Amino acid sequence: MNAIGVDVGGTKVAAGVISPQGKLLSEVKYPTENVRELLLSTIAEAIAEVRRGYEVGGVCLAVPGFILARENKVLSAANLEAIEGIPLKEELGGRTGLPVTVENDANAAAWGEFRFGAGKDVEDLVLVTLGTGVGGGVISHGVLLRGARGTGGELGHITVQPAGPRCGCGNRGCLEALASGTAIARRAKKVASERPDSGLGRLAAKRAPLGEDVLDLARRGDEASVKVLQETGTWLGIGLATFVNIFDPEVIAIGGGVSEAGDLVLEPARRELRLRSHSPSRDLVEVREATLGARSGMLGAAALARGEDEEYVLGVSATR
Amino acid sequence: MNAIGVDVGGTKVAAGVISPQGKLLSEVKYPTENVRELLLSTIAEAIAEVRRGYEVGGVCLAVPGFILARENKVLSAANLEAIEGIPLKEELGGRTGLPVTVENDANAAAWGEFRFGAGKDVEDLVLVTLGTGVGGGVISHGVLLRGARGTGGELGHITVQPAGPRCGCGNRGCLEALASGTAIARRAKKVASERPDSGLGRLAAKRAPLGEDVLDLARRGDEASVKVLQETGTWLGIGLATFVNIFDPEVIAIGGGVSEAGDLVLEPARRELRLRSHSPSRDLVEVREATLGARSGMLGAAALARGEDEEYVLGVSATR
Repeated sequence: MNAIGVDVGGTKVAAGVISPQGKLLSEVKYPTENVRELLLSTIAEAIAEVRRGYEVGGVCLAVPGFILARENKVLSAANLEAIEGIPLKEELGGRTGLPVTVENDANAAAWGEFRFGAGKDVEDLVLVTLGTGVGGGVISHGVLLRGARGTGGELGHITVQPAGPRCGCGNRGCLEALASGTAIARRAKKVASERPDSGLGRLAAKRAPLGEDVLDLARRGDEASVKVLQETGTWLGIGLATFVNIFDPEVIAIGGGVSEAGDLVLEPARRELRLRSHSPSRDLVEVREATLGARSGMLGAAALARGEDEEYVLGVSATR
Repeated sequence: MNAIGVDVGGTKVAAGVISPQGKLLSEVKYPTENVRELLLSTIAEAIAEVRRGYEVGGVCLAVPGFILARENKVLSAANLEAIEGIPLKEELGGRTGLPVTVENDANAAAWGEFRFGAGKDVEDLVLVTLGTGVGGGVISHGVLLRGARGTGGELGHITVQPAGPRCGCGNRGCLEALASGTAIARRAKKVASERPDSGLGRLAAKRAPLGEDVLDLARRGDEASVKVLQETGTWLGIGLATFVNIFDPEVIAIGGGVSEAGDLVLEPARRELRLRSHSPSRDLVEVREATLGARSGMLGAAALARGEDEEYVLGVSATR
């Protein structure tokens, strides 16, 4: 049965009807209203519009924040306070007449990559998304790791440098504080001041370089920018090694805007990963780019709306 | 049905018949022979002796090393090379006439604490064992986290200080290199040299202080020794915060020899954990002492021999 995945982001609400094979049949996008009643009606309207002409069995919302899995509630969402605490299952279930669940967006994206993307050929996947922040999700033997309350899988908030830079979460030296787009911008500022004659240094004399600038300059051969990305990759690799030793995954998929840097970031990450992780896990794990792009959360949410994570567990358990 | 758990350690082989309720019905201990054929016959003999008079349904060996879960083989075991590569299921299955499986000792201990010990009232448990090394195991929603090949759950080998002390595994700054008994001994040497007039300093003038010495001295009020344990607890807390953010467990149980220090280590660990982890996980997680002591691995192995981890998954999936 088709299902609807809704990506509820800080700037837009994107809803899609997805087939069981992961095909996007229909899609709508609305700007996000960060006011409770408006947000609810925007989501309900997006669902009503996108489902027109399709039979659908359920809806899952992918939301950036801490989700209480059993209650289908958002506990806190950094850029989307309006959604906090709403009994979404009841509120939206009533308006749409469909079963509604909620999932953390990074968990939904991980499930999407697992079912339809970079991890579709494996049973043990770690997804790390490098954007403004660092998110992630873990599928172990086909089970989505949610934790006791649903707030697990916060891969961006492992401590990799205890006295390192302050993270948005309040801690110091989180992976997010060292390998996100924000971290790249901070590192670029520092390297630019050390190398004023580099491309990066010349840009920084005019304005603060963004992550995208560093990527552009690195691709055109600017060594200072390459250095910024290499350092970022090294920190990423320290985090990945921890994931390999803990999760022993078959594939680590890297998504998010920073992943567009490709091997400029991934090669130093792979090198550091090998130095810091154990055989045989390190010899067999593959670090790949994620393949679903910005739609991973929507695709994963739709798959989760079908409750297929639970069927999957039952299927795997019965056969192993 | 009763089952046999065999704790195959570097110095002794301990086998026990365990009831489904976790009661130890019978136990034998043999010295370990680190020669392939002798080791196999020691284990077979221990099983034969301990089962006398009991009906048992199966055997699981808890082995310190990397286990290939699907093959029931030990890939590598640091102090027990003789066991590496043996097809244990076939070799011991043939000699005992019982179904035989193999599990990593820390995973078995985690399952033991989950079923019968510090985690028996919860579904999401992390066990961290602080001994000569640091081991651990994770149960998430009743599922033992093994990873793709069975070599996951190496909680002692997350990197918490990238340029920190060299770990036995080759990496730098693993949790094991900072919070194990070995790390305590190294830290004690350093603190003793800074404070030669302390109890620790006076002991160090005679001989290298062991972990136990530091614990004894700290209990008798030696401030230098208290400092050593506090620093150890702080590093432990950095690691625990990572586990809370990743696994969102209800309980973290701390076992192993170092855990005998109790709050001297656990209080600074709890403090650091709170600083570095997220609400609501950090507010609800409880850091407890493990309760099964040295028999956790044997008890957990016996429970796993019954295949109850798989039944458990099926049961939980069917009800949630």
